[in-house]
Amino acid sequence: MKTITARDNPFFKRLKQLAGTVRRDRRAGQALAEGLHLASTYLDTLGQPRACIIAESALSEHKMQHPLQPIMARIEPSRMVVLTDPLFAQLSTLARAAQCGNVIFLIDIPAPELPLQITHDCLILDGVQDAGNVGSILRSAAAAGVRSVFCAPGTACAWSPKVLRAGMGAHFFLHIFTEIEIEKLVPHFAIPLIVTDSHSTASIYEQDLTKPCAWIWGNEGAGVSTVWREHATDCVTIPQAGGMESINVAAAAAVCLFEQRRQRTA
Amino acid sequence: MKTITARDNPFFKRLKQLAGTVRRDRRAGQALAEGLHLASTYLDTLGQPRACIIAESALSEHKMQHPLQPIMARIEPSRMVVLTDPLFAQLSTLARAAQCGNVIFLIDIPAPELPLQITHDCLILDGVQDAGNVGSILRSAAAAGVRSVFCAPGTACAWSPKVLRAGMGAHFFLHIFTEIEIEKLVPHFAIPLIVTDSHSTASIYEQDLTKPCAWIWGNEGAGVSTVWREHATDCVTIPQAGGMESINVAAAAAVCLFEQRRQRTA
Repeated sequence: MKTITARDNPFFKRLKQLAGTVRRDRRAGQALAEGLHLASTYLDTLGQPRACIIAESALSEHKMQHPLQPIMARIEPSRMVVLTDPLFAQLSTLARAAQCGNVIFLIDIPAPELPLQITHDCLILDGVQDAGNVGSILRSAAAAGVRSVFCAPGTACAWSPKVLRAGMGAHFFLHIFTEIEIEKLVPHFAIPLIVTDSHSTASIYEQDLTKPCAWIWGNEGAGVSTVWREHATDCVTIPQAGGMESINVAAAAAVCLFEQRRQRTA
Repeated sequence: MKTITARDNPFFKRLKQLAGTVRRDRRAGQALAEGLHLASTYLDTLGQPRACIIAESALSEHKMQHPLQPIMARIEPSRMVVLTDPLFAQLSTLARAAQCGNVIFLIDIPAPELPLQITHDCLILDGVQDAGNVGSILRSAAAAGVRSVFCAPGTACAWSPKVLRAGMGAHFFLHIFTEIEIEKLVPHFAIPLIVTDSHSTASIYEQDLTKPCAWIWGNEGAGVSTVWREHATDCVTIPQAGGMESINVAAAAAVCLFEQRRQRTA
């Protein structure tokens, strides 16, 4: 177990960089997953993190049945890093870090290999910019049994602390491809590409969703970009009551993903 | 048309108070709705605002086919208030106010009357704390044709600028009851009260949702509180693939509300 007390420690400086959400961090290949829930889901799905970072105060509370105990018991000792509370606070993005166990995992961002032919269910996020929406969509995808998500440029960074938190562990069940350009991706699809549009007259409930397909979700304001629209094979709508134009993108994604699941298990 | 240039102007001070989201503001009976979309939806549904507040620079751009023009043309001149750009910036919660038309409506918060018997579809928000989630749920409710939403204490303020923005105008189609206590509300229900629970074995797809019902949605972390659970008549689940425990509350609400709509229009 390593203890860090100085803010100019190189490892700490590296962590602080990752705590930001700037573009550069994505290419760093690593991310920070904070809180008890993410930590235990990571251990259950992907195993040991690069490092398990805890606050000093959590360590002392640890002796007194701290909720962190079952997680610490599973970590290889060489991976444990203890930070002084002020240093830990500089990494934490949670309002009440103590309640979430004062734990942050340093993890490697998986780099899944693009299959030659995409024949299984997936999502394409084309500029979804709100971190909460991206996290919610990833969570719905994992819960609906969809395993691949392609994030086009302009989409909120899937591995930022905010998206990881909103994803509630979904990341560890998914293959997430980030910063993927349309020209590189489109030739791989061997399944229909579906967009939703409130002006379409084709109801999702009349769409056959029993076979694999790719759903395309666009920006909160501008919707799906023209280039992705041009590649779509189907355009459907979620029939709505009068008045409202549309629903939130993450809500719409959930409706479609679970309608797909309903049709398949019916 | 009134112009305000001084920050100690009493009307401006009142607006600044409303721009916050503190509890006190809710009792003020008024709210600020910002941006072109909210403004035009308000005019379409509820008519004239108390005041239409614009930034000085928007007024000069107005002469040059500013997107604000069609809204300004519909406002009674006595309701127009022009603020200097620095004063307007103090009220704005949008990152790029200029792109959204530099317009804020001062509106009265409607105070709908509690019916003696609740016999129509509705939602109960029991401590949903994220403003984005509350807004997304209101938006899904309006789009699914549900017209009443009861917000129990602990729920994010429905009329805060953030929730208004996420609601995208849904507020103006709904009857929203805020800070409503369970003891006062429960005796009024003449319809089933449904909670969702990932541990339930009753699928929403097997639940008869063709008749009016009330959906109860709880806190993002803690779920529906025990008191509300005890009053629920039905407990259903959205069947999920293995691994994930649950989905985001606003995503779950959308799935249930549109499953209800699907059953009714089938």
